[in-house]
Amino acid sequence: MGLNLTYKVLKDHLLEGKLETGQEICIKIDQTLTQDSTGTMVYLQLEAMGIKDIKTERSVAYIDHNTLQQGFENADDHEFIKTVAAKYGIVYSKPGNGICHQLQLENFGKPGSTLLGSDSHTPTGGGLGMIAIGAGGLDVAVAMATGKYFMKAPKVLNVKLNGKLKPWVSAKDVILYVLKELSVKGGVGKIVEYSGEGVKSLSLTDRATITNMGAELGATTSIFPSDERSLEYLKSQGREADYKEMKADEDAYYDEVIEINLEDIEPLVAQPHSPDNVRPVKELINLKVDQVAIGSCTNSSYSDLMKVARILKGKSVHPDVSLCISPGSSAILKALAENGALADMIAAGARILECACGPCIGMGQAPKTDAISLRTFNRNFYGRSGTESAQVYLVSPEVAAISAIHGYLEDPRVITDEIDFEMPEIFEKSENLFVYPKEDRESVEVVMGPNIKPFPINSQLEDSMSGKIVLKVEDNITTDHIMPSNAKLLPYRSNIPYLSNYSFSTVDTEFPQRCMDNDGGFIVGGDNYGQGSSREHAALAPLYLGIKAVITKSFARIHKANLINSGIIPLEFANTDDYEKIGFMDEIEISNILEDLPKGKLTLKDKAGGNSIEVLFEGSERDIEILRRGGYLNYAKTNLI
Amino acid sequence: MGLNLTYKVLKDHLLEGKLETGQEICIKIDQTLTQDSTGTMVYLQLEAMGIKDIKTERSVAYIDHNTLQQGFENADDHEFIKTVAAKYGIVYSKPGNGICHQLQLENFGKPGSTLLGSDSHTPTGGGLGMIAIGAGGLDVAVAMATGKYFMKAPKVLNVKLNGKLKPWVSAKDVILYVLKELSVKGGVGKIVEYSGEGVKSLSLTDRATITNMGAELGATTSIFPSDERSLEYLKSQGREADYKEMKADEDAYYDEVIEINLEDIEPLVAQPHSPDNVRPVKELINLKVDQVAIGSCTNSSYSDLMKVARILKGKSVHPDVSLCISPGSSAILKALAENGALADMIAAGARILECACGPCIGMGQAPKTDAISLRTFNRNFYGRSGTESAQVYLVSPEVAAISAIHGYLEDPRVITDEIDFEMPEIFEKSENLFVYPKEDRESVEVVMGPNIKPFPINSQLEDSMSGKIVLKVEDNITTDHIMPSNAKLLPYRSNIPYLSNYSFSTVDTEFPQRCMDNDGGFIVGGDNYGQGSSREHAALAPLYLGIKAVITKSFARIHKANLINSGIIPLEFANTDDYEKIGFMDEIEISNILEDLPKGKLTLKDKAGGNSIEVLFEGSERDIEILRRGGYLNYAKTNLI
Repeated sequence: MGLNLTYKVLKDHLLEGKLETGQEICIKIDQTLTQDSTGTMVYLQLEAMGIKDIKTERSVAYIDHNTLQQGFENADDHEFIKTVAAKYGIVYSKPGNGICHQLQLENFGKPGSTLLGSDSHTPTGGGLGMIAIGAGGLDVAVAMATGKYFMKAPKVLNVKLNGKLKPWVSAKDVILYVLKELSVKGGVGKIVEYSGEGVKSLSLTDRATITNMGAELGATTSIFPSDERSLEYLKSQGREADYKEMKADEDAYYDEVIEINLEDIEPLVAQPHSPDNVRPVKELINLKVDQVAIGSCTNSSYSDLMKVARILKGKSVHPDVSLCISPGSSAILKALAENGALADMIAAGARILECACGPCIGMGQAPKTDAISLRTFNRNFYGRSGTESAQVYLVSPEVAAISAIHGYLEDPRVITDEIDFEMPEIFEKSENLFVYPKEDRESVEVVMGPNIKPFPINSQLEDSMSGKIVLKVEDNITTDHIMPSNAKLLPYRSNIPYLSNYSFSTVDTEFPQRCMDNDGGFIVGGDNYGQGSSREHAALAPLYLGIKAVITKSFARIHKANLINSGIIPLEFANTDDYEKIGFMDEIEISNILEDLPKGKLTLKDKAGGNSIEVLFEGSERDIEILRRGGYLNYAKTNLI
Repeated sequence: MGLNLTYKVLKDHLLEGKLETGQEICIKIDQTLTQDSTGTMVYLQLEAMGIKDIKTERSVAYIDHNTLQQGFENADDHEFIKTVAAKYGIVYSKPGNGICHQLQLENFGKPGSTLLGSDSHTPTGGGLGMIAIGAGGLDVAVAMATGKYFMKAPKVLNVKLNGKLKPWVSAKDVILYVLKELSVKGGVGKIVEYSGEGVKSLSLTDRATITNMGAELGATTSIFPSDERSLEYLKSQGREADYKEMKADEDAYYDEVIEINLEDIEPLVAQPHSPDNVRPVKELINLKVDQVAIGSCTNSSYSDLMKVARILKGKSVHPDVSLCISPGSSAILKALAENGALADMIAAGARILECACGPCIGMGQAPKTDAISLRTFNRNFYGRSGTESAQVYLVSPEVAAISAIHGYLEDPRVITDEIDFEMPEIFEKSENLFVYPKEDRESVEVVMGPNIKPFPINSQLEDSMSGKIVLKVEDNITTDHIMPSNAKLLPYRSNIPYLSNYSFSTVDTEFPQRCMDNDGGFIVGGDNYGQGSSREHAALAPLYLGIKAVITKSFARIHKANLINSGIIPLEFANTDDYEKIGFMDEIEISNILEDLPKGKLTLKDKAGGNSIEVLFEGSERDIEILRRGGYLNYAKTNLI
């Protein structure tokens, strides 16, 4: 059987391992991207690796998250990232330039290339036929330092698109439809590969909307073929030379296939509080709306915003609705300013926000108490808007715009006029918001403001460890428990010592102090420990507090990897009943670690109860080596660089 | 002698009192404005007055301060203000519409009228020949409820302008020049009235820039004549009918006169940390600049921003500079979007922020540590930018724009091209961001989110009061000490119980609890107690905490008035040495108050030392009546409504 597109790109980039589903492989990374909320940590880690030059073709450092700047911390982070970018030959994108994924697509996306980004919506690049993966910050730092990324060769789920979307149905409805079909767990361990006749009818930015929000499927990434629509897009960006046709072989193998007839799709809405809680818009019309927010890396392209402008033109936003629009990039904002579309939006009563992530990540525009907020974004998790009592509904730009006018959720098919606008043949771009690195980088001095602190590095694994159970928690502990993320703490993402004071703050405010008093120790957890976001701060804070191992009934996958990357041993009870045998503040000891770890079976001695408890370690040889070295950073320095 | 313009307008509006310098008068208020940071309290007070209709010709409630919306509190305040406006027949200006003073000028300003606003930059309206005064929130609430405002008839300082500004010198330089001449105390107790041949050469918005920043002189307000330039402006706003010629009599009397030849003025800059710390730009060129911020109620008019756009056109913002631009109103933003100027700004690398106060009040765009920030704003007080170590310099839009390109402070006279743009004959306006009240207001329900709490109301004055000295402080205590204002506390401006927990927090964190434990008490202070901003929260928090009287060596004027308005007695030591005689936590008693207050002399018994101390009260009969009633709100209800 032939190769699917996913494996073609992986094959082109294979450095180590056997390209077989489930096998660990190492691929070459062509491009990396970071945003500022994860970026400061990435570049601190890069600095710690002691390299001189990066190994990627193109690495870009974007500022798009912390752009409100309520204190010196954000601007200091920007300055740090700017100077470190200049030192290592990384392109710096200034605040105001736009959202990383939109900008990466416009300026650097290349069919057939690989992109690793420290943001979960990096798969946006898949719309252009790239393997574009979101990863932990340390993975991105290592990719810059070595050009390498380690992963398990994924299953490939083929979504075959037939037919053509009906009027007023858009790419957002396609991914909402897929989410309804597959659920937020449907993509775990897989890459979603789109194909079929229906692909042609989708513009490049439509495809990017679909791969972007493919992150909500739990998929490693999503990918579309690169074809004449890709060429058309690259031409409009003045980058025709970067075009390359990419598609699967006719007889390509897929682990799974689902077929979707685009004609079956109608305007959809994801209800609170999950992107897969999807229903047809028509079933929810007359839902009174308080806020409408248009933008984000999912729906802020030129054509998305032109549709919005045309719907708003000559109309008035409902007096009870606050409509805010944050364009995806300065190039798009400039185009809208030039062709009158922006003036139409303003005339209708829209609030024009800076080109940035903004309300999608809770950076401003928190709606009022109990608000109904319609958003063209990708996530409607509980509390994410900044207002815990708010109800967030995810919709297409068309649904958002018509609903802003009507004041209640509305099906855009009520609009009788046709939407009419031309795509610019070429986007006139100014690159004044990009700072390209200079040839001479020797003299660059990295500027670290007072809020930027060195991050913790573990030391080589010892053969035996002992200490107290400084925390014992129940099932389903999330990374939000371990290391909360909110508007108050986000400015401190580059300050692990400060952040650590809030580790487990919603569970046990005395945890950090107890760690200090006991020279660290161990955490005992239940099932699914560490579920939620990929933030590595949920491992770095415990590392800073001296946590040596975490013993649970089971781990969530990414957090387990982050623990290993930090040199903290993730252990599981061989017998889950033993969870009951270990008490809070028991003194425990684990010995013979270096010999037992490769065997996957260790013995934990509870000095309080006198019990010997069997615990398991599941990981690759590389994982063990990482733990032995005291974390991925040390491993990368000695084994990869 | 003839009448000056100031006294002409006052005479037209005189309701009570004798129009003689220093006498208390009551004038009719035609218009009021509020912004959201002071507005919630104003409307809570209005609600407490139990009226049905407002007595002004036009009252407008703007949202321009708390527009970042980091939590539900801001949006809840907006909703409260929106509904209360609908109930009382007040125009509501939605967030995103722009800055109150710019919008008031464009849409409602009327030569010869009076305007009272709960914002210190209300004098902007003086550019259009209005008596426009910034006042405490309660004064504005009373003005809405009764149409009345009480003030001392001011001295009038005439600034006679001769000649014409040279190229690249602007209105901002005029007011910086005046500030240099008069200092930040030069206008106290006065209204500044501009006249002379030079006035004609200044556009309406130039004049508004000058009267706006006249607030920094400490003046009650500033005023320009209304002439053909005013007519031209009103025509461009589609409000020709509101024009009225207004000027001083030829032989008008002035308390003071200064003459300025506009030709003598060159580009100026106010250095940290005071608006009167003024030097010529040319003496400071080569100062490396990190941030440039353009906008605010001082410099965000159409012509200001057109000048900026023309200077930026085809150029690039320096890579080390973050340039942000917040237009003054949606009408201006729309005009810039239509004529290509906005596209030029974006192409040059500017960050376009929402139309709001934004960085001028520390709402976002805090610069990096130790930053040099050039701003076209009106205040450069220590810490106001949100970054304590930042150095803020105040400049004209021209200086800001050229410096953003060069990366260091620059004199705009280096530009060789002439700036060329046309003023629109008429600004096409959409009023979709204004919500006008409906005829039927019976059914309107006021929505109060969970963060909006009733504000404290004092009770009738008792003849004797006793309690402990719960706080003893030194000289020069500011309203920032009494009730800190920062990005963290601003969302709680409508929640006095919460705010009160932070009263005096930089001086003595236990003060609030001590008040609770002792059922309130008394504060003893030094000289100049209560200097700084006009915020009435600095009286409301002590009122909430049970403070009955404040005894000092001397008071700052506005805070003393706020104390009286809250029903807290401001007393001064007859002999300042007695300050030493009263100890912290001494039990004191003041009796025979009702009889002694009108005499201006009271006796305080210190039970600890056994001393009898003479203290003075200085105030008008109306002040005494206000204290007897338990504050201005009670007084207004019983005596004015």
